[in-house]
Amino acid sequence: MPRFSDTSLQNSKPSVDRKNRIKDPKNIKRTVDPAALEMLDFTSENNIITAFDRWSAQQPQCAFGYQGICCRICFAGPCRIKGDEGPGSMGICGAKDYTIVARNAVRMMAGGCSAHSDHGREIANVLYHMAEGHAPDYEIRDADKLRRVAKRIGLEVEGKSDIELAKEVALAALEDFGRPGEEKCTFLKSTLCEKRIKKFEETDVFPRAIDREVVEVMHRTHVGVDADPVNIIFGGIKCALADLNGEQLSTDISDILFGTPKPVMSEANLGVLDPDKVNIIVHGHNPILSQMVVDTAREMEEEAKAAGATGIQLSGICCTGNEVLMRNGVPIATSYMAQELAIATGAVDVMVVDVQCIMPGLRNVAECFHTKLVTTMSISKIPGSYHFAFDEAHAKESAAGVIRLAIETFKTRKASGRPVNVPKIKNKLMAGFSLEALLDLFAAINPENPIKVLTDAIDSGEIAGVCALAGCNNLEAVYEKNHTEIIKEMAKNNVFMVGTGCVMQAAAKHGLLTYEAVEEYAGPGLKAFIDRLYEANKDKLPDKLPLAFHMGSCVDNSRIFNLWTAMANEYGVDVPKVPFVASAPEAMSEKAVAIGTWVISNGIPCHVGAMPPLEGSNLVWSVVTCIAHDVFGGNFILETDPQVAAKKLLAALEYRAWKLRIHKKAAEEYGTELCQAF
Amino acid sequence: MPRFSDTSLQNSKPSVDRKNRIKDPKNIKRTVDPAALEMLDFTSENNIITAFDRWSAQQPQCAFGYQGICCRICFAGPCRIKGDEGPGSMGICGAKDYTIVARNAVRMMAGGCSAHSDHGREIANVLYHMAEGHAPDYEIRDADKLRRVAKRIGLEVEGKSDIELAKEVALAALEDFGRPGEEKCTFLKSTLCEKRIKKFEETDVFPRAIDREVVEVMHRTHVGVDADPVNIIFGGIKCALADLNGEQLSTDISDILFGTPKPVMSEANLGVLDPDKVNIIVHGHNPILSQMVVDTAREMEEEAKAAGATGIQLSGICCTGNEVLMRNGVPIATSYMAQELAIATGAVDVMVVDVQCIMPGLRNVAECFHTKLVTTMSISKIPGSYHFAFDEAHAKESAAGVIRLAIETFKTRKASGRPVNVPKIKNKLMAGFSLEALLDLFAAINPENPIKVLTDAIDSGEIAGVCALAGCNNLEAVYEKNHTEIIKEMAKNNVFMVGTGCVMQAAAKHGLLTYEAVEEYAGPGLKAFIDRLYEANKDKLPDKLPLAFHMGSCVDNSRIFNLWTAMANEYGVDVPKVPFVASAPEAMSEKAVAIGTWVISNGIPCHVGAMPPLEGSNLVWSVVTCIAHDVFGGNFILETDPQVAAKKLLAALEYRAWKLRIHKKAAEEYGTELCQAF
Repeated sequence: MPRFSDTSLQNSKPSVDRKNRIKDPKNIKRTVDPAALEMLDFTSENNIITAFDRWSAQQPQCAFGYQGICCRICFAGPCRIKGDEGPGSMGICGAKDYTIVARNAVRMMAGGCSAHSDHGREIANVLYHMAEGHAPDYEIRDADKLRRVAKRIGLEVEGKSDIELAKEVALAALEDFGRPGEEKCTFLKSTLCEKRIKKFEETDVFPRAIDREVVEVMHRTHVGVDADPVNIIFGGIKCALADLNGEQLSTDISDILFGTPKPVMSEANLGVLDPDKVNIIVHGHNPILSQMVVDTAREMEEEAKAAGATGIQLSGICCTGNEVLMRNGVPIATSYMAQELAIATGAVDVMVVDVQCIMPGLRNVAECFHTKLVTTMSISKIPGSYHFAFDEAHAKESAAGVIRLAIETFKTRKASGRPVNVPKIKNKLMAGFSLEALLDLFAAINPENPIKVLTDAIDSGEIAGVCALAGCNNLEAVYEKNHTEIIKEMAKNNVFMVGTGCVMQAAAKHGLLTYEAVEEYAGPGLKAFIDRLYEANKDKLPDKLPLAFHMGSCVDNSRIFNLWTAMANEYGVDVPKVPFVASAPEAMSEKAVAIGTWVISNGIPCHVGAMPPLEGSNLVWSVVTCIAHDVFGGNFILETDPQVAAKKLLAALEYRAWKLRIHKKAAEEYGTELCQAF
Repeated sequence: MPRFSDTSLQNSKPSVDRKNRIKDPKNIKRTVDPAALEMLDFTSENNIITAFDRWSAQQPQCAFGYQGICCRICFAGPCRIKGDEGPGSMGICGAKDYTIVARNAVRMMAGGCSAHSDHGREIANVLYHMAEGHAPDYEIRDADKLRRVAKRIGLEVEGKSDIELAKEVALAALEDFGRPGEEKCTFLKSTLCEKRIKKFEETDVFPRAIDREVVEVMHRTHVGVDADPVNIIFGGIKCALADLNGEQLSTDISDILFGTPKPVMSEANLGVLDPDKVNIIVHGHNPILSQMVVDTAREMEEEAKAAGATGIQLSGICCTGNEVLMRNGVPIATSYMAQELAIATGAVDVMVVDVQCIMPGLRNVAECFHTKLVTTMSISKIPGSYHFAFDEAHAKESAAGVIRLAIETFKTRKASGRPVNVPKIKNKLMAGFSLEALLDLFAAINPENPIKVLTDAIDSGEIAGVCALAGCNNLEAVYEKNHTEIIKEMAKNNVFMVGTGCVMQAAAKHGLLTYEAVEEYAGPGLKAFIDRLYEANKDKLPDKLPLAFHMGSCVDNSRIFNLWTAMANEYGVDVPKVPFVASAPEAMSEKAVAIGTWVISNGIPCHVGAMPPLEGSNLVWSVVTCIAHDVFGGNFILETDPQVAAKKLLAALEYRAWKLRIHKKAAEEYGTELCQAF
């Protein structure tokens, strides 16, 4: 019998009182990343303002907004809910705390869904235009995946050329954004397990078209529409599942166009910047630009050398960095919160950005150095930066323009003789674990049924379950402390870890994506499991396996969803019975809100380590931390202390594994079906 | 030479300092509506809390939110911009005031566009399902309009049945919500004048699909995407034009399904409630429910009489009220801000609501009385109210259920003997002025070219131009004071007025939609013009013509857009040269932000009498009040004092009429084309 039930402990209010945390923000050590610490000393001495300073300047933050009880949806407001009773306890229109908190929350889901999915639309458009012959620099790099995806979404594949199929897949994806009628999203339908499809249909949250669900959320949260918090949240869940659909098609088509990742070695942290090379950082999210920069940079090495550099050093920040790390081994410069610090090294010649998580503050730091900040997308510009309109019809030419600018900028840097200040800190890493790559590792042990290698290890108690790590940075936590502490705690307790996004960049920077970390942190079961995987695969692997398995960018959370679905199917149960948890230890963005919501709706407990604006309504708090579990089998664990969070995650895994064993035993003993209750 | 240039006066900061206004909110007389005043005394004595009390309780409102410089887009925030320099002058990510203000503003446009357009989608779906035989209680009530619309959007009409055409029109509308590819919105393309199409294409703001533009705005305003305020605003304009597309198709299809409005007499204000009848108020926006209630109520008069009532008294609030007023002469109970006061009369048996502008506060007031509050739409529920799921396949049955509930509730009211408290205040009104109805009036004078009647009257100086009045209520202004004062000022200065929404409800309640008001307030030119129209049409009109012409609900602002487009085409100029202005004297909702934005983008100066959250950025302020004029020919006039606002509106009309005359004269003298500069 486990110590805690699935939700009892998780529902408690977070153990750390935020108000105490931020009493004296300047006294808090802001990060555990030694390279960032070194750069923060430098920026502080040189009076260069970064997000770390701006965070301090924003304290104390508005308690109404922080708790989600500030409403600015119409401009009769702003309304701030002030008390438990009387006219001040409601907005001018009469909206109560629960309505306001729920509306604000689902609008965040709409924002996240829009960002992820619009990214997917771009990629689907590139596939379509490639197939039509209008994007000649792109190609189908994984035709097998193209056929697998086409088949999965119900297309007839026999007798069709790759190009024909590519066009059909692209069109199917584009139709998932908008179609007349009530048909449901194709990509999601093709990847959910049957029991989840039924659950989502029964609860009326199965998304129709991505864009439509965003619009419906925006409509229902307009002044004077939905006031029922539960109804609003169900609307939000539908939108969050639309987000999952967008992520699924983004990953699928990215793999088709750019190749499905395989294990690859690289390095991470600011030490990857090489003062003697032309340093280009790709930053943002969408591989349609960054992959072209990678391809083109290889062809332009000689130009860089002719300019006096020893070569071109590409590196990445945020998820476009993850995309080119996963497929090309491009090193990670740093993660979201330290993006300005990369420029402050003085070694970056060009930082080229596309969309999402690009701090406007970059420009001010770039102004203190020779660095050119280059925007590329029409919907994402920064005043004072250079805009090179990226043109998919001339993709390599666009990329070459950026690289040429970097070479020119390198020359001015060298000519100026201004010293650079690159911390000599980096760690090696292994990444590239698409689900295909992971199953390939398992297949060396069990070729007939690879996923059984993972479920067997859980059944035998060798590993405690799986924890997926995802999400951003948020200075409410000490930068990268939550990430690294939770990873170490999971490792010690034999939890198999997969992850994406800025968490994996933190892990990489701290040397946690290496076998050395397995030796240092893994419990005996986890170590044995990873060793066994390595032994069976050592001929084809570039190095020993890491402590956590990097699955890609934030849209690649779809790979994690595919993993737990495979496990559920193998167990023959619905997802909420699978010993699987998720954690976003330093979440910040609206995308994280959308992801977290589809994670819990899929039946997975999801820890969030920075407080989303929900505390203003006890009702909404209860719904997301508790009632969600009753309906969908997953719930949020809102907990700012990483040690307590780890305990809660472990408790959830322990409970699930225990219950699954009991139910299996009962089914065997009585010859009945496996109990489906969660 | 006019006293003011088109924009010089409009760009000045508003003349009333809000901080002085709200120093002592309790001392301000909150409305000029005598019925509302009577009810406010009653609610105050009986300790019934309404929006008026909640508004006072919210004072002082947060100055950061009020000015638009509070950012809650990611949950690293909330960030409040505190100063002109240093780390506190930017959000944690480095977003400056102009980025934050612009992002917040365009997200309001996305909210408005979603609300209006989703309403249009519902109506298009009803047309489609009707054509497919799945919505048997609906029919084509204006087949001529169906054919006109079909032709206008480029469909082949010859040899097709009404049902076939209805399906095609519905599908064309539904495709305007989402389509793969870059094709532009059909309905908008078919209604703009050529010069505006060119302008919107040149400035890259022509919307593709409605839902897509909402998603693009939500994406570009996500953390770390667009930081360029001008770029953000152009994105918002594209979304606002998508809103116009949604409004256009809403109006078109509503007319097809429910009939195109014709002049109709009715009454307005709380005095329309009849204690001896079963009182049902329809409230919200979408006619697909309210029209069914009207149709069904006629058939159920006898049931009401059997229950002891003298009949069924329907009345309306907000735009669903306008829809059934325009087409059926259903009286107006009151407008947005006084919706709770209607229930406080104790005479309302059922208030049945659909979507938008429904105060959640209604429930608390309803709890003090016997009134049943009935929600009907899946995306719009209110805790504690009754939910009757409206089913378009059984529309009349759904409506009958609501009416039956009202009859039962009437019985309990009568049985209780509890006194009702209906102010004996109402005014007669004339409404029903679709553009077709207006042109029909003109056609009696000039059958070949009806619109020339209006442009000739401007050219001759008989009238000063046209002012369109639209928008909500906002207690930042004294309820209905801005509305009524601006109407009277316009009248005095011979401005021909059209209007929609809650402004026209205010006008109706104050007796301004009557000929008596013409006699009392109209300048000699305007009076002569209205008299002339009446004389030519008196055989077919139910009464003399009113001071202002009620064109319908807020989606019917598309009728106003069609009117100025007809005028521009008649003049042979682009819209910015037409002597036409707009005013939203008490705007509040996100829909108003979307409408205002497409109004100015179309080239019309647009006054807003309650302050939108823009003051936090001088740059954004300048863009919307000034630079917008340079690019699109229209600009916002942000002015809280109705008298000053009227002066600014008149100045804009005077300038436009003067310039148009000069250019015409020059063109005639030199035999050249009419100068197109604005």
